[in-house]
Amino acid sequence: MRYSKLFGKTVREPLKDMTQDSHKLLYQAGYIRESTAGRYYLLPLGQRVFDKIVKIVEEEMDKSGAQKMSAPVLHPIELWEETNRDKSGGYELMTVEDRRGAKFALGGTAEEMFVDVVRRFQLTYKDMPFNVYQMGYKFRDELRARGGLLRVREFIMKDAYSFHTDDQDFKKEYENMRDTYSKIYTRVGLKFDIVPADNGYFGGEYCHEFVVESEVGESKYFVSEDGSYIGHEDVAEFKLEEVNPEEELKPMEIVEQPEWVKTMEDNIKNYKLPAERFLKNVVYKNRVDGKIYIVTIRGDLQVNKNKLEKLLNLVGLLDDATAEDINSIGSKPGWVHSWGYENFDVTFIADNSLKTVNNFIGGQKEETTDSINVNYGRDFKHEIEGDVAHAQSGFLSPDGKSKLIEKKGIEVGNIFQLGQHYSKKMQDAVFVDSDGKSKEFFMGCYGIGLGRTLATIVEVSHDEKGIIWPESVAPYQVHLLGLNLEDSDIKTKAEDIYKTLIEKGIEVLFDDREGVNPGSKFADADLIGIPWRIVISKRTGDGVELKRRESDQNQTLSIENALSQLLGE
Amino acid sequence: MRYSKLFGKTVREPLKDMTQDSHKLLYQAGYIRESTAGRYYLLPLGQRVFDKIVKIVEEEMDKSGAQKMSAPVLHPIELWEETNRDKSGGYELMTVEDRRGAKFALGGTAEEMFVDVVRRFQLTYKDMPFNVYQMGYKFRDELRARGGLLRVREFIMKDAYSFHTDDQDFKKEYENMRDTYSKIYTRVGLKFDIVPADNGYFGGEYCHEFVVESEVGESKYFVSEDGSYIGHEDVAEFKLEEVNPEEELKPMEIVEQPEWVKTMEDNIKNYKLPAERFLKNVVYKNRVDGKIYIVTIRGDLQVNKNKLEKLLNLVGLLDDATAEDINSIGSKPGWVHSWGYENFDVTFIADNSLKTVNNFIGGQKEETTDSINVNYGRDFKHEIEGDVAHAQSGFLSPDGKSKLIEKKGIEVGNIFQLGQHYSKKMQDAVFVDSDGKSKEFFMGCYGIGLGRTLATIVEVSHDEKGIIWPESVAPYQVHLLGLNLEDSDIKTKAEDIYKTLIEKGIEVLFDDREGVNPGSKFADADLIGIPWRIVISKRTGDGVELKRRESDQNQTLSIENALSQLLGE
Repeated sequence: MRYSKLFGKTVREPLKDMTQDSHKLLYQAGYIRESTAGRYYLLPLGQRVFDKIVKIVEEEMDKSGAQKMSAPVLHPIELWEETNRDKSGGYELMTVEDRRGAKFALGGTAEEMFVDVVRRFQLTYKDMPFNVYQMGYKFRDELRARGGLLRVREFIMKDAYSFHTDDQDFKKEYENMRDTYSKIYTRVGLKFDIVPADNGYFGGEYCHEFVVESEVGESKYFVSEDGSYIGHEDVAEFKLEEVNPEEELKPMEIVEQPEWVKTMEDNIKNYKLPAERFLKNVVYKNRVDGKIYIVTIRGDLQVNKNKLEKLLNLVGLLDDATAEDINSIGSKPGWVHSWGYENFDVTFIADNSLKTVNNFIGGQKEETTDSINVNYGRDFKHEIEGDVAHAQSGFLSPDGKSKLIEKKGIEVGNIFQLGQHYSKKMQDAVFVDSDGKSKEFFMGCYGIGLGRTLATIVEVSHDEKGIIWPESVAPYQVHLLGLNLEDSDIKTKAEDIYKTLIEKGIEVLFDDREGVNPGSKFADADLIGIPWRIVISKRTGDGVELKRRESDQNQTLSIENALSQLLGE
Repeated sequence: MRYSKLFGKTVREPLKDMTQDSHKLLYQAGYIRESTAGRYYLLPLGQRVFDKIVKIVEEEMDKSGAQKMSAPVLHPIELWEETNRDKSGGYELMTVEDRRGAKFALGGTAEEMFVDVVRRFQLTYKDMPFNVYQMGYKFRDELRARGGLLRVREFIMKDAYSFHTDDQDFKKEYENMRDTYSKIYTRVGLKFDIVPADNGYFGGEYCHEFVVESEVGESKYFVSEDGSYIGHEDVAEFKLEEVNPEEELKPMEIVEQPEWVKTMEDNIKNYKLPAERFLKNVVYKNRVDGKIYIVTIRGDLQVNKNKLEKLLNLVGLLDDATAEDINSIGSKPGWVHSWGYENFDVTFIADNSLKTVNNFIGGQKEETTDSINVNYGRDFKHEIEGDVAHAQSGFLSPDGKSKLIEKKGIEVGNIFQLGQHYSKKMQDAVFVDSDGKSKEFFMGCYGIGLGRTLATIVEVSHDEKGIIWPESVAPYQVHLLGLNLEDSDIKTKAEDIYKTLIEKGIEVLFDDREGVNPGSKFADADLIGIPWRIVISKRTGDGVELKRRESDQNQTLSIENALSQLLGE
């Protein structure tokens, strides 16, 4: 490709509102342009990288046994109504009506569409298992979309859906996809963590995120120092240590408290004891039926709403209680008790941390009094107990042998167990088993954000001068720079080498512009980030200069030797 | 691929509402399923064919020098407003709003989107020409969508847009695309006509449709018997023959007419003369300003509204006049005169055919009188004259050397001259020319309907048993049928051959089902239409049976010899 005719050339400066390196570099180097916020054009250079990622994904998916197909972009809304996801807040769903009044969803995911086509066939156990995938447009009506290809409103996802006779059969495919994803991300040059995560919106029981560590990522997760444990912040577990096991249990009593003691900080100041010695109560309300839930937890811990919703089997349904909600049970914010409210419909939940402290302070705070030496199990006990606390850096890993470290990363893909969630909600989502009975099938789903993967590669592989593409996804293998092309001998030589490279099957971008100074050409090459750079100029004589993008070492050598290096001979 | 695990197996019968062969066969053989009317799933078999077509299109487009990129699916409505196409009836445009109130078009074509990204770059004449293309989703809110992939509401189009400094440069690319399209359709196995056609909606001056002759097609066009002329019915020209040149001009007179003479048929009966001897008047109204247009034409001809609108420079604006419209000029339907109406704002148009008849009958018909021996040029003359008549089978070709034949076909692609239509309507659609001046660029656009191409291949390449795929786009090269697989020796042999074929890099669909009778397997193979069939059964001994889909000749030969034939060695 001649750079002179390439559509989408470099620009010197990023735009002001660009904050992330991948966004700036992909813009400046001419890979993408924004249409409206969160909707992008891929320019020819960007398309080439994108298509290489797609090819790698397709090759590995095909090798895994999955079958490519495709579903329409517009989903009949009736399908989303069948699973109630048309009303769910999980993804921001756009809808569109045609002129006959038929309504469609612009889906953020396509479980219903795939179940709908699968259920049209009279499947038997002999047809299963199978895994079908598409390269499908996805839409999310996000309120804010910033950060280039990392957070968008419209994108192409490789989404796969597998169908099984039972959970055991599904688990094999889940492992198969886990391996396949590992191969894919390795081939595109990414280091990744496989992070067990929460599976709320999709309805299954477990899932894993493929996360690339990065400061700009929105996924938080914890790993243990010894590498034996990993978990998304939504689900991360840890081992609780006993705080004061030696301290003797004292009788609970109500004591006077200065009136200025209102918050946890006040408590700490007043009692000169750390936060972990106090009881804390956090109130939630069920969005649908209005029921109140009070979580009692150790003062130094935060309630993890994901864990709580899962424990209560109320996924996606709990809101933080408002002052009004708290007043409705005869209490007020900051003065919620750890027990009582017998006249109201209140459910208490005890976090496991309550068992790690002897002689808690708090639990029954009034204007000028509070309870002290409160012991869980002796002075109060909740019917529902469990781990509903957020992990924190420095906590013990679940096996107690190591400490947790918090990380941030970009979620580039995920694999989900769906169980019979969709087949139970949707009519006729069945197969005939070997016993002749009709049964609901088991499912998994598996996503890869293709544009986000592209941006992530840039995010983790660049320097101050520009992008450094891994060979496997680079738009071209060689960036041929012709300098001093006003000299017809040099021009002829450059054109000859361009032709030779093409004949050898090497993908080459040829900077054939005349009247552009060498400095600009070098800067453009660094910005664009093609792995190999070849320079022809009046200084290179009969040879060429060869350089790797990431290296400072410039070799002058014959074109034959350069070719050998390029072809790995 | 093992047929047992293929998603999307054959079914015996088409659905009742399916009328077209391609629709029936693609459904029965398991290539497609309808989601809602006009929106289709491609099942894995269909996807493989589709992807092969895409690959051929991309290879040829890339070879032509075009650059692949992509635009968002949702087009900001402001762009469509810039060109007024948001209100045009040409394509049925769906729109969607996001929750912030931004409005988007689901485009049926993407000229505005491509101009919008191109104008963001400070292009100079050095950057041009270039041609950018995408594989883009297109939406058309058709009232009726029937016929499988031939007429849909949602589809993927290869749409390309080229940008030029001037018309001369554009014309080179137009030829380049014409050649490229010819290569593409040849490679996918289609015979096609390149038909000059009308370019109304797109705004340019000329275009060509690539049409595959077929009875189910919606494109009508004319070719001359000697092959020298071709033209779409909207633009097809012909040579008018003089009807009665020997007849001497007689003086015009008003004559009595029996009262039962009302229609053209009545005239023919009354005067015992053919339709070509009568004057006919056809009335239109401008949809926007309400102006009336009367076309006077020879009685045997039909007015071609496309030609008329082009002649009047009123593309897309004329409606057939209603009785009310005709009353408004003091006339009534069936009694419209060929001259007069001086007190009304009426424009007359004379079709060229008026010059081919001496002594017309008609022109001033009243209840019981009419004018006869009317001669155009002598008795009346219109300021606007031109060819506004439909061609008809049997008419002379424009050079007069041959006769026209009417054909029907499926439009699988098109190439359009756009001139400066979009760059003049849209702001800043400019480049800096070599003289330093900012100028509006010239454009062309080039479309290929990919799903329609797929269906067209089936439409023209099938027999009563099923599809017959050309090698270049077949989902697999070989359909390996294992019969009598309950016999473990045969099963082992079939599995070995399956493995061997894969190792040789041959794409193979392996019918590995047990408990399915040979007749069903043969019927499925014929329906699916893979070019080569290999059978392993208890009858084939150490060898195999090899057969081409389109042939009745079954060869029994060794696997080595079969492989040599398959690999063309």
